[in-house]
Amino acid sequence: MKNRTLIASSTLAFLLFGCIRTVTPPPAGLDRIVAWEMANQTGWSVVSHLADEIGPRFAGSENGAEAIRWAAEELRSWGLEVRVDPVMVPHWVRGEERAWLPSHRNQKIVVTALGPSVATPAGGIRAEVMKVSSLEELDARADEARGKIILFYGVFDRDKALAGKSFEAYSEVVSLRSRGPSRAAAHGAVATVVRSVGGASLRTPHTGGFRYDDEAPKIPAGAVTTEDADLIHRLIERGERVVMHLILETRTLAPVESGNVIAEIPGETRPDEIVLIGGHLDSWDLGTGAIDNGAGVAGTMAAIKAIVETGLRPARTIRLVLFTNEEMGLSGARDYFARYGERDRHYATLESDSGATSPIGFATTLTREELALLDGLFDPLESLGIRTFTTSPAVGADTSPLSRAGVVGFGLRSDSRLYFDYHHTPADTLDKIDRRELTENAAAVAAMTWILANAEQESLKGEPEE
Amino acid sequence: MKNRTLIASSTLAFLLFGCIRTVTPPPAGLDRIVAWEMANQTGWSVVSHLADEIGPRFAGSENGAEAIRWAAEELRSWGLEVRVDPVMVPHWVRGEERAWLPSHRNQKIVVTALGPSVATPAGGIRAEVMKVSSLEELDARADEARGKIILFYGVFDRDKALAGKSFEAYSEVVSLRSRGPSRAAAHGAVATVVRSVGGASLRTPHTGGFRYDDEAPKIPAGAVTTEDADLIHRLIERGERVVMHLILETRTLAPVESGNVIAEIPGETRPDEIVLIGGHLDSWDLGTGAIDNGAGVAGTMAAIKAIVETGLRPARTIRLVLFTNEEMGLSGARDYFARYGERDRHYATLESDSGATSPIGFATTLTREELALLDGLFDPLESLGIRTFTTSPAVGADTSPLSRAGVVGFGLRSDSRLYFDYHHTPADTLDKIDRRELTENAAAVAAMTWILANAEQESLKGEPEE
Repeated sequence: MKNRTLIASSTLAFLLFGCIRTVTPPPAGLDRIVAWEMANQTGWSVVSHLADEIGPRFAGSENGAEAIRWAAEELRSWGLEVRVDPVMVPHWVRGEERAWLPSHRNQKIVVTALGPSVATPAGGIRAEVMKVSSLEELDARADEARGKIILFYGVFDRDKALAGKSFEAYSEVVSLRSRGPSRAAAHGAVATVVRSVGGASLRTPHTGGFRYDDEAPKIPAGAVTTEDADLIHRLIERGERVVMHLILETRTLAPVESGNVIAEIPGETRPDEIVLIGGHLDSWDLGTGAIDNGAGVAGTMAAIKAIVETGLRPARTIRLVLFTNEEMGLSGARDYFARYGERDRHYATLESDSGATSPIGFATTLTREELALLDGLFDPLESLGIRTFTTSPAVGADTSPLSRAGVVGFGLRSDSRLYFDYHHTPADTLDKIDRRELTENAAAVAAMTWILANAEQESLKGEPEE
Repeated sequence: MKNRTLIASSTLAFLLFGCIRTVTPPPAGLDRIVAWEMANQTGWSVVSHLADEIGPRFAGSENGAEAIRWAAEELRSWGLEVRVDPVMVPHWVRGEERAWLPSHRNQKIVVTALGPSVATPAGGIRAEVMKVSSLEELDARADEARGKIILFYGVFDRDKALAGKSFEAYSEVVSLRSRGPSRAAAHGAVATVVRSVGGASLRTPHTGGFRYDDEAPKIPAGAVTTEDADLIHRLIERGERVVMHLILETRTLAPVESGNVIAEIPGETRPDEIVLIGGHLDSWDLGTGAIDNGAGVAGTMAAIKAIVETGLRPARTIRLVLFTNEEMGLSGARDYFARYGERDRHYATLESDSGATSPIGFATTLTREELALLDGLFDPLESLGIRTFTTSPAVGADTSPLSRAGVVGFGLRSDSRLYFDYHHTPADTLDKIDRRELTENAAAVAAMTWILANAEQESLKGEPEE
């Protein structure tokens, strides 16, 4: 209660006297760290290697293992202590995937499997397509679903994305992908395809993950391109019966050992307090994971490199974690939390998994009131164009277990208007990244890392009650 | 000489007194024809059927034949005399096509065959990639080409396209596609891939045609996506040796009979003078040919329908020709010219093969001076937003033999800024067409058709010399 009053009165004080409030001076060395990345562009080197020289880095694949090997070796070559915590991950493999419409001159339908879809039986599945726009419509028409292939027809709102709310646009429709398959199976459907959840298409499939419910049968689940979904939509709206033949030759092999790459810069004065920065090293298998999440790996690795190269020592320990298998089950995040969630004192987390473009702000689990109490701690970021903090209980997938356990979390926000144009597609490739923007993105991560590692506050959530 | 003086003085008169020049009144019925299409949108119905219900209409394929059958039947159902002139066309079939980089962790390269590429040998071709930016560079480095796969790396200038000069941007690089394969073969290369010639890509291959020279060996020829070309470009620029494994399982079967669909509205007062309108009915096999050239077929068929439905009789005979196999050899255009080029008196041609968007003008083989002599014949088009005539010796592929023979030609120009984003790709689908824009496009064709069919001028090229 004491705390609440304090917060409320501080907020009032901030609102009234914000312009003359005490301001925390920027931590020594911040400018040098930012300048180092701007000049040396480690972020660009890292993402270039990941995307071009390794390529797709799907967890469980050989390339996934190579990315872990390379990142660990690279970090060691910078003079850091590095370990790879073993993490078991699924080993799911995409095979032949194609579809066509026997009812319509065998028109080709461009399809890709969602992970971890089971395969269609030998020869594929041939069934009438039933189109629904929502899970509610599916439930309401449940008696029609038996024996059908369900097309989940949800339209990603690109106008909203272009207005700067791309993650909102995504979350409006992504449940059709993530929850549709088992819901359809429960009603007797034989397979599902979702209209690709994304902002752009040139007959481009957007893959993604989902989970099978234990209660429902496992049925094959794919994504069709927006063009193909729209074709089926038009045919059905014209009153035509549409039959699809669907072949998805996926395989689920025995789980394999993957790992989280962990490297630290020990803190000088508060070595037991951890500032965790990182993002996922794995990518989907279709593209080369340049944006998702080569860029996040690049930004956080570049932050570490800049700090090492400038020879500065942080007050707290900076721990870089490159998580494995974010995309198909958060294996790395779960493993990390199980090992360290209780054991270590995490001062804050900073996750980068929102693209490769110019930084515009951070999402944080702090409340507006808590932010206001921090006396301008983050003001030095303004020179990097960062003025906006968005408050949210969820700031990143891999750090979400820590956030739920009460650790203060931050997530880099970059200009994400076009993020879902490329997300989870074959087109997530290095050419989509502007070198200058990525460098600014990495510099913002470096700056935030340095601020968190040296903040004078005992806790970012205000004074402990004690 | 008399003629030239006349033209020159008329031009002067036009320039000086353009605002008070005599204006040809619009032919009776023009407004009714335009209004009919705006209200009934035949163009949209036609392109919807072609793209959605038939799909790709590659010449020589079953779908190509179905399109001819359907178009002839549809035109007959409108009360027209219809014939299908038999035309032999190549029968080229695409098979498996894939590529990867053995030198770079077998990174996938998205590739499609150009038509009429021969197949790679069983097991494919594996060779080092040599990158050249021009045919001249290839010639200059000819001694390096032996045994290599040549990457023709030309960058389509999208800024130029967005500035309204998309066909210029296309023509700057398309020779790498059309002339590269045989040039490379002459220097001992084993295969070629061209950076997809187009304005946009989400890992999207743009196919297209080329011709084998008789003198050079026939080697496999494909197009890789801009992303894949850019990847190889970057690797080579970093000094790395790039090896590609290329599989293109094409087949060239025996030629098959296809046809040109021809329908006429007989002229009332000048039945022996032909106003030829049309475009190609075939499409590439990757997309559904909505834009290229479902839209052109739609516009010219809609023009015929509007004229028929309003019950008006043109002075001249309006002949609709839906040409076969424009895409891979102009078979229909050649056949038409051989049959009718000498036999019939063609007053003018109007080809539609430049997209489905709002009309902005016409290209014409007339000179500026000849246009000026026409006393505002085309002024009624201004109410449709058409004020621009571009003069060019080439206004359309299928009517080019007639143009070369001196027949006055017109080609519809529509807003083509994004035309090459979809051109020859799997993404040329109905959703790329705005219904309203296509209707305006069709209405412009109808209006121009009616003007040409009723023009009072004996000849559009000024008074004959005699």
